[in-house]
Amino acid sequence: MLPAGIVKMVADGTAFLRWRVEPVSPVDALSERLLRRGDAAIIDFGRHLTGHFSFSIAGEGRGVDAPARLKLTFGEVPAEVAEPLDPYRGGLSRAWLQDEVINIDVLPAVVEMPRRYAFRYVKLEIVDTSPNYAVRIARIKATALSSAGADPPLLPETVPARLRQIDKVSIATLRDCMQTVFEDGPKRDRRLWIGDLRLQALTNYATFRNNDLVKRCLYLFAAFPREDGLLPACVFEDPEAHRGHEYIIDYAALYAAAVLDYAKATGDWNTANDLWPAVRKQMELLSAYVGPDGVFAAPPRSWVFIDWCDALDRAVAINGVFVFSLRRAAELARHCGAEDDAVKYEQLIARMTAAARSVFYDSSRKVFVSGPKRQVSWASQAWMTLSGIATNEEAAQAFHAVAAQADAVRPGAPYLYHYVAEAMLQCGLKQEAKQLVETYWGGMVKAGADTFWEVYDPSNAGLSPYGSTLVNSYCHAWSCTPAYLLRSLDLAGK
Amino acid sequence: MLPAGIVKMVADGTAFLRWRVEPVSPVDALSERLLRRGDAAIIDFGRHLTGHFSFSIAGEGRGVDAPARLKLTFGEVPAEVAEPLDPYRGGLSRAWLQDEVINIDVLPAVVEMPRRYAFRYVKLEIVDTSPNYAVRIARIKATALSSAGADPPLLPETVPARLRQIDKVSIATLRDCMQTVFEDGPKRDRRLWIGDLRLQALTNYATFRNNDLVKRCLYLFAAFPREDGLLPACVFEDPEAHRGHEYIIDYAALYAAAVLDYAKATGDWNTANDLWPAVRKQMELLSAYVGPDGVFAAPPRSWVFIDWCDALDRAVAINGVFVFSLRRAAELARHCGAEDDAVKYEQLIARMTAAARSVFYDSSRKVFVSGPKRQVSWASQAWMTLSGIATNEEAAQAFHAVAAQADAVRPGAPYLYHYVAEAMLQCGLKQEAKQLVETYWGGMVKAGADTFWEVYDPSNAGLSPYGSTLVNSYCHAWSCTPAYLLRSLDLAGK
Repeated sequence: MLPAGIVKMVADGTAFLRWRVEPVSPVDALSERLLRRGDAAIIDFGRHLTGHFSFSIAGEGRGVDAPARLKLTFGEVPAEVAEPLDPYRGGLSRAWLQDEVINIDVLPAVVEMPRRYAFRYVKLEIVDTSPNYAVRIARIKATALSSAGADPPLLPETVPARLRQIDKVSIATLRDCMQTVFEDGPKRDRRLWIGDLRLQALTNYATFRNNDLVKRCLYLFAAFPREDGLLPACVFEDPEAHRGHEYIIDYAALYAAAVLDYAKATGDWNTANDLWPAVRKQMELLSAYVGPDGVFAAPPRSWVFIDWCDALDRAVAINGVFVFSLRRAAELARHCGAEDDAVKYEQLIARMTAAARSVFYDSSRKVFVSGPKRQVSWASQAWMTLSGIATNEEAAQAFHAVAAQADAVRPGAPYLYHYVAEAMLQCGLKQEAKQLVETYWGGMVKAGADTFWEVYDPSNAGLSPYGSTLVNSYCHAWSCTPAYLLRSLDLAGK
Repeated sequence: MLPAGIVKMVADGTAFLRWRVEPVSPVDALSERLLRRGDAAIIDFGRHLTGHFSFSIAGEGRGVDAPARLKLTFGEVPAEVAEPLDPYRGGLSRAWLQDEVINIDVLPAVVEMPRRYAFRYVKLEIVDTSPNYAVRIARIKATALSSAGADPPLLPETVPARLRQIDKVSIATLRDCMQTVFEDGPKRDRRLWIGDLRLQALTNYATFRNNDLVKRCLYLFAAFPREDGLLPACVFEDPEAHRGHEYIIDYAALYAAAVLDYAKATGDWNTANDLWPAVRKQMELLSAYVGPDGVFAAPPRSWVFIDWCDALDRAVAINGVFVFSLRRAAELARHCGAEDDAVKYEQLIARMTAAARSVFYDSSRKVFVSGPKRQVSWASQAWMTLSGIATNEEAAQAFHAVAAQADAVRPGAPYLYHYVAEAMLQCGLKQEAKQLVETYWGGMVKAGADTFWEVYDPSNAGLSPYGSTLVNSYCHAWSCTPAYLLRSLDLAGK
């Protein structure tokens, strides 16, 4: 890929993270300049990509008598190349920030940066040449990597333009996360998580249909269970495939859904059969947390994710996730000839449903409430809906109720926004779902997103779960689902 | 090569550049530690080397879930790894400072730094790992590069220990500068200069005797003359061999001496014959600057080097250098069957000698004086001696006179110190020459030099021709000559 041009970043309090992009010149203008100590340029590739970067560099002057030292900074969004990266105050590794200092001993040279980056912008800074020469930089090129294959057909023009734009950004997000696995974010973490995988796979079935990649990922989880059989929340591929150290209860449960989704999308029930024991094991292990009262209670110190939101009481949501997963496990069990298991799951679903309705549903307020403080949250309503614990009518009422309640705990990140939108569609709130997608994902598009972000709070642009927006990921798997909502769930329909 | 240990640098106003080395632990103790954000260690290889550096790095902890970012700083002397390199205020390229920032995506890894460095010390700084793991560094190794071959025999124990130590450091300096050419400094510039080459070659004949390397270097100059035939002061090898942009009059003249030295040391008169036209051309071009008065006057804006010393009036010294070179050219001419040229040079030598004695010699003060201000300098006396313009008796008187004159311009760098010492030996001042070597080069040894430095002023440790001692070279070709003075010129003799 060739650059789209040279740009500059302009401080702008109204822009996302306070930086606006302005065009400066065509890229050829850069090659016409001689650059020396302190010179810099920001290259814009016109779209987000995951891949490699290269350029040629030549020295011109009285004599090329010293190495050239350059700094390169790769950014998914303008702020990453506009702000100094140091001192860095984030909680995650500084090494995720995409900057390199290189020394080039012999000029002219073609420099092929060996690492992979996720970027749209590249800031090139000439730290130094020597007093006797300047450098000319040319043949700037990026090589975009993806296992996605050709783009799917565009949505028909009958779909409103703003939704078609959201669809495009969704697809770009998924494309740049599809590598040798479905990565969560190509800039940061770059690994396979069950929660992200399920949403990516659903979107993939509606778009790229690289189903072998889903299959590979499902097997990667099944291959590396914990000693007791619980699947890890994530898997690393390098230096050889191995499980991550995190275990997330809702992710382990949702593996059942991911396998069933795959089998239904592809017809590959052989693989489903092969993976069935792993699904069965998750259900067995997690069923142990359902108490005599029929309520799932996660053990102390376990990780129930649901959403990036510290304030969220997760008791209701995790019951919803587990019932949702049990339903899929039961369907899978019947396909795999495990009738006894299917029956067992259905009995558990019935028991948990009754319990959840009795314990969590506040029939006066028409919402599900979670925890000792009877917290009202979007997460609770979404998972009570998706699990089928709430009737569609109750679900619709509940969503109207939380929408009217200012202190209801809102979703913190796109992952939960997806399940809220899906739940709204399920209970017939199509207009509300469409509005949610238009305001939330559409809000990112309006703020300039080429790919959807890991975290986005319309009321707090500076949000980071890691103490620095510079280390947030701006192309993140779990945000790619509008294309699925539009294409598979007919979000744009009447 | 394996490290000698882990050290720390301690601020010490009495130490060279204000940093003293103190041992911390054996190197194995480093591998026993887990390192994380902010940790650092300085590795000491126990001696200077030119070459490569490698280490293994593994992650340990809950999960190796992010790249590791390290900073490596290579130092020839303690200050380079003890002081921050930025903000850098030197005049030469910042790229010469030997620091790298690296990001390692996959752990464990063996990291082989691809560039070559000149160093004894390596500071390893862990910029970051992740909150979930720390790194263990092991298998630290350096690969020393040199074309010098095996070390020459040690000087006999009858030579005083301090001189034997100076000899060792000289040899180490030459060894680490001998690569595919005789480099001026393996840390910085890394190129072939005529002035350095001649002194390195002389020392090489007395030590390593890699005579093919000298031959290669002599041809490299002859291959890349300026359009008019003048030889460049330096040659670059990469990306393909080409001449530098600098022309130094005294260096062009001394090419004659370098060729004759080579032929006499090796008996390879075929090569001398082959290079004779290049020598002849230098004499022809430079003779044009000898005026009707028999005085050599460098053209305006030309570069007469002689020494790193702004205050030096170079008029006398350049006349000495040219006569010195003409003598060698005449000897070479006779060997090459160019009798006419030899006669011509000898006539010119006689004319210039008479003129210099008449114009530059102050018979009342018994010194040669240079320029309109009648400047007295060590440089002038040295080159009047080496050229044979001064008689040995006059030369000895002159050296005694400058030694007694507080405002006589002293040498600024080892290159001229060498010619002063050689001139002293030539005129019979062996004790003075020995004392000079013991105080000047011996002063570097006392200050901790493993290899001799590019610049050293005993009265001004912070001297740098480039505005920063951090960019000075601390293993520099033109400082390697004590081994030649001791071994070929019998400096240590009675």
